[in-house]
Amino acid sequence: MEKLIVTVAPTGNVPTKAMTPFVPVTPEEIAEDIAACYEKGAAVAHIHARNEEGRPTHEIKFFAEILRRLDEKGCPIIRQISTGARAGKTAQDRAEALALNPASASLATGSSNFPTSANVNDPALIEYLAKIMLERNIKPELEIFDTAMINNAVQLHKAGLLKEPLLFNLVLGVKGSLPATPKNLFFLVESLPPNSVWSVSVIGPQHVPLSMIAMALGGHVRVGVEDNIYYSKGVLATNVTLVERIVNIAKAMGREIATPDDVKRIWGVN
Amino acid sequence: MEKLIVTVAPTGNVPTKAMTPFVPVTPEEIAEDIAACYEKGAAVAHIHARNEEGRPTHEIKFFAEILRRLDEKGCPIIRQISTGARAGKTAQDRAEALALNPASASLATGSSNFPTSANVNDPALIEYLAKIMLERNIKPELEIFDTAMINNAVQLHKAGLLKEPLLFNLVLGVKGSLPATPKNLFFLVESLPPNSVWSVSVIGPQHVPLSMIAMALGGHVRVGVEDNIYYSKGVLATNVTLVERIVNIAKAMGREIATPDDVKRIWGVN
Amino acid sequence: MEKLIVTVAPTGNVPTKAMTPFVPVTPEEIAEDIAACYEKGAAVAHIHARNEEGRPTHEIKFFAEILRRLDEKGCPIIRQISTGARAGKTAQDRAEALALNPASASLATGSSNFPTSANVNDPALIEYLAKIMLERNIKPELEIFDTAMINNAVQLHKAGLLKEPLLFNLVLGVKGSLPATPKNLFFLVESLPPNSVWSVSVIGPQHVPLSMIAMALGGHVRVGVEDNIYYSKGVLATNVTLVERIVNIAKAMGREIATPDDVKRIWGVN
Amino acid sequence: MEKLIVTVAPTGNVPTKAMTPFVPVTPEEIAEDIAACYEKGAAVAHIHARNEEGRPTHEIKFFAEILRRLDEKGCPIIRQISTGARAGKTAQDRAEALALNPASASLATGSSNFPTSANVNDPALIEYLAKIMLERNIKPELEIFDTAMINNAVQLHKAGLLKEPLLFNLVLGVKGSLPATPKNLFFLVESLPPNSVWSVSVIGPQHVPLSMIAMALGGHVRVGVEDNIYYSKGVLATNVTLVERIVNIAKAMGREIATPDDVKRIWGVN
Ligand SMILES: [Zn+2]
Ligand SMILES: [Zn+2]
Ligand SMILES: [Zn+2]
Ligand SMILES: [Zn+2]
Repeated sequence: MEKLIVTVAPTGNVPTKAMTPFVPVTPEEIAEDIAACYEKGAAVAHIHARNEEGRPTHEIKFFAEILRRLDEKGCPIIRQISTGARAGKTAQDRAEALALNPASASLATGSSNFPTSANVNDPALIEYLAKIMLERNIKPELEIFDTAMINNAVQLHKAGLLKEPLLFNLVLGVKGSLPATPKNLFFLVESLPPNSVWSVSVIGPQHVPLSMIAMALGGHVRVGVEDNIYYSKGVLATNVTLVERIVNIAKAMGREIATPDDVKRIWGVN
Repeated sequence: MEKLIVTVAPTGNVPTKAMTPFVPVTPEEIAEDIAACYEKGAAVAHIHARNEEGRPTHEIKFFAEILRRLDEKGCPIIRQISTGARAGKTAQDRAEALALNPASASLATGSSNFPTSANVNDPALIEYLAKIMLERNIKPELEIFDTAMINNAVQLHKAGLLKEPLLFNLVLGVKGSLPATPKNLFFLVESLPPNSVWSVSVIGPQHVPLSMIAMALGGHVRVGVEDNIYYSKGVLATNVTLVERIVNIAKAMGREIATPDDVKRIWGVN
Repeated sequence: MEKLIVTVAPTGNVPTKAMTPFVPVTPEEIAEDIAACYEKGAAVAHIHARNEEGRPTHEIKFFAEILRRLDEKGCPIIRQISTGARAGKTAQDRAEALALNPASASLATGSSNFPTSANVNDPALIEYLAKIMLERNIKPELEIFDTAMINNAVQLHKAGLLKEPLLFNLVLGVKGSLPATPKNLFFLVESLPPNSVWSVSVIGPQHVPLSMIAMALGGHVRVGVEDNIYYSKGVLATNVTLVERIVNIAKAMGREIATPDDVKRIWGVN
Repeated sequence: MEKLIVTVAPTGNVPTKAMTPFVPVTPEEIAEDIAACYEKGAAVAHIHARNEEGRPTHEIKFFAEILRRLDEKGCPIIRQISTGARAGKTAQDRAEALALNPASASLATGSSNFPTSANVNDPALIEYLAKIMLERNIKPELEIFDTAMINNAVQLHKAGLLKEPLLFNLVLGVKGSLPATPKNLFFLVESLPPNSVWSVSVIGPQHVPLSMIAMALGGHVRVGVEDNIYYSKGVLATNVTLVERIVNIAKAMGREIATPDDVKRIWGVN
């Protein structure tokens, strides 16, 4: 079985310091947490930025500062920038940080609901972001909040806007989007096109069992405070403890952990 | 097996006279087509309205005129009014025709994509529409464009905003939403809560086989020019020919056709 | 969609005249029923023989007599001879009628249970029968009573004992073997190797809906008094009425009916 | 999630000392291995016996000797005796060791194939064994080699021959029976009746990932040299190393390990 890619998603748009002291929000906190997770086995960092008030932002300067600090620390983790719907208003907003030419960026290929708003990614926006990533040689990670988004990605590939292997992240457990059940996960995996590279990102208490199923099926795993502020019932998580648990399961099952160089090979990028 | 409810969806928002001469757009054309379909076995009419220019509208006067003409013809078919995302801008727009107290109305319980726009139904809009339907005793038909919308409906039911039996319409084949495959249909059906009443509404050439699968599984069928302008490759459909084909398949398999009174019994309304 | 192959299984091993007057048991009765079913659209006859006491037999003379009478009537239906476990004790018994070089013969690729006995087809027997069919250019129809038999057939193909396209008959509803549910049928179909030709043969009241699902999925259908002595609740079936119903459903859905020549093309035989 | 029951199957009918030095075959070797596995976390021992030549046997004296030695060691592991098809010729043979009143015994509820023979368990045999177990208060573990056996068990329960909770062991990867794929495992699990207790027993290289999936789904795991003589590619397994790996995965995922007392509670026995 292929080595396991562990992605850490340290911050996201939702957790606040009031919810958990363990969410990193300043560029330095984020970079530090990512570097610590790299030491434990994470090979990719899925990065959101926050402004001075701790609010989600797509402004390039915050992303630039996070990346600068990662460089400063000499951390070779693969950088992936979020273009998600919660932080930006316009397509231009959402694309702004792509000018930093990160190795990867997220790309949701359809619309669904969040708990209190719509997760709107209309066809024009998707094409717009996909084209920028194609031009800048940024590997899109296709964020799948519901089943239709898989076929939307396949159509985008047919239209020449995505390169193989398609890289999927199956997001389960966001209220308003696909619930985190084994049946849903299994169905999504069966619905992927051949030769896909895929991971799961599971919100809520099912994140450990569903991540294990992904690991058993040859998929990869994203964890982090973005997705789960709890490690277990009543116990707050840190990015490091979440990464460690996945790495420990991988070791117990005998699956090797991918390095950033392995990620490049698996994703087919350089 | 329960009697088969055939719903006719004569108009929708997309077909134009330029695309097919068989799409009814004026209130009289729509009422006439519905009455003819009732004679062939349709028991429910899923109604969209068009304004004087033939464009989709949620304005109550057009719906009122269609219903008036159906009454005039003495057609007992069950009236279902669309609240779909394409015709109205605001929640109030989309709810406007509910003031007519139709027996039923459509309610999409989540967001997805259309071919060139987003199908936005955010949580607040869904609740708003569901509450009006509950107060006015209008049976919501839950329009499922992707898997997550089933669970969203279940949550709405838990919140007291829907009455049992939940009434689902599984929409497959809209570009940007769930593709029309047997696997997707089967998965949606397995994902429904117990005791649901459900139909399919399939866009594209798979609409005959997938409708048959629904009929074999005990589900119901919606057909009409809204969903398919073609009867078969190269042959334009009329609402009547589409209804007739489903009724013929039902007869051949030995499944009885529901009357409007049967619909009331099956839906648990009066 | 490919034309629909309707196979008639007029007799089987189980039904007796005491159970239904409509089961043909003498060679003349069997040939006459098959010829009548051919006129209604059946393109393949799945043939069991009975001895003078009406008991199942693998003796070649009874099969020879049935085939002779079909020839006499000039009926061009494709002949398929059963090698099933109920009628013969030894491998030689079960292979005996293959000496008649029928176009096709049944081949169960594994063991399961019947209502009161085991349906034993051990690996050596399967290979023995497969080899004879291969040498004599008899197209094996792989009788799948449970999931494992599909993979057993795939292994047999890998071993060079089966030619493509593999021809499967999915048998559902035999007590002790796989139950007749949509979920089981759908799972079997998903488990078939690519490019398979397949039909269903469903025992019990689910045979109409499951046959429809098969027809909708591009599969073919076997019907007959062997599988169902009832046409509907309380109404005894004849082979002709069972064939007619499937043909009527096919016509209503717009699927053409295969002739014996179509069968040869679809099966890749001559 | 319920605590994880780890069952060790140290010997089986197939492995020989020539194949692996690590298969225990004498009563002392077997008892010693079981006791060592108990120390590592196994709570149930699935026991086959071998005669003086190391051949599979159902003779009671060999089973008695194994149990005596376990008692002598004070090992509280739950005893489960195999009644499998390979070692005994007649129903009486296969039931012989049930006279020892073990806590549990295996019961295959249907027929399938082994690599070179049929796994014959006809309806009369199944009833015969089930009745003895019911009378003697022996908990049957239902050995599922293919899908139909689940429904056969459900029918046996309806007939009053099994007590709830039904206890299933899903056997995947025996050549001739159901192949060891995630899809097959997932389908079997979905086919179980509500409130079942279940484990997997996977033969071949997929045994680690499929066991993980079972653990993630709330199922239990059987491992041992009976099922796998290899720990990983080219590395021979011991019963202890196989048990340890499962326990390590369970610890890494945070699932507690069941004791023999937990097993009694989970199985509803005393
Ligand atoms: Zn994110
Ligand atoms: Zn509509
Ligand atoms: Zn037969
Ligand atoms: Zn065993």
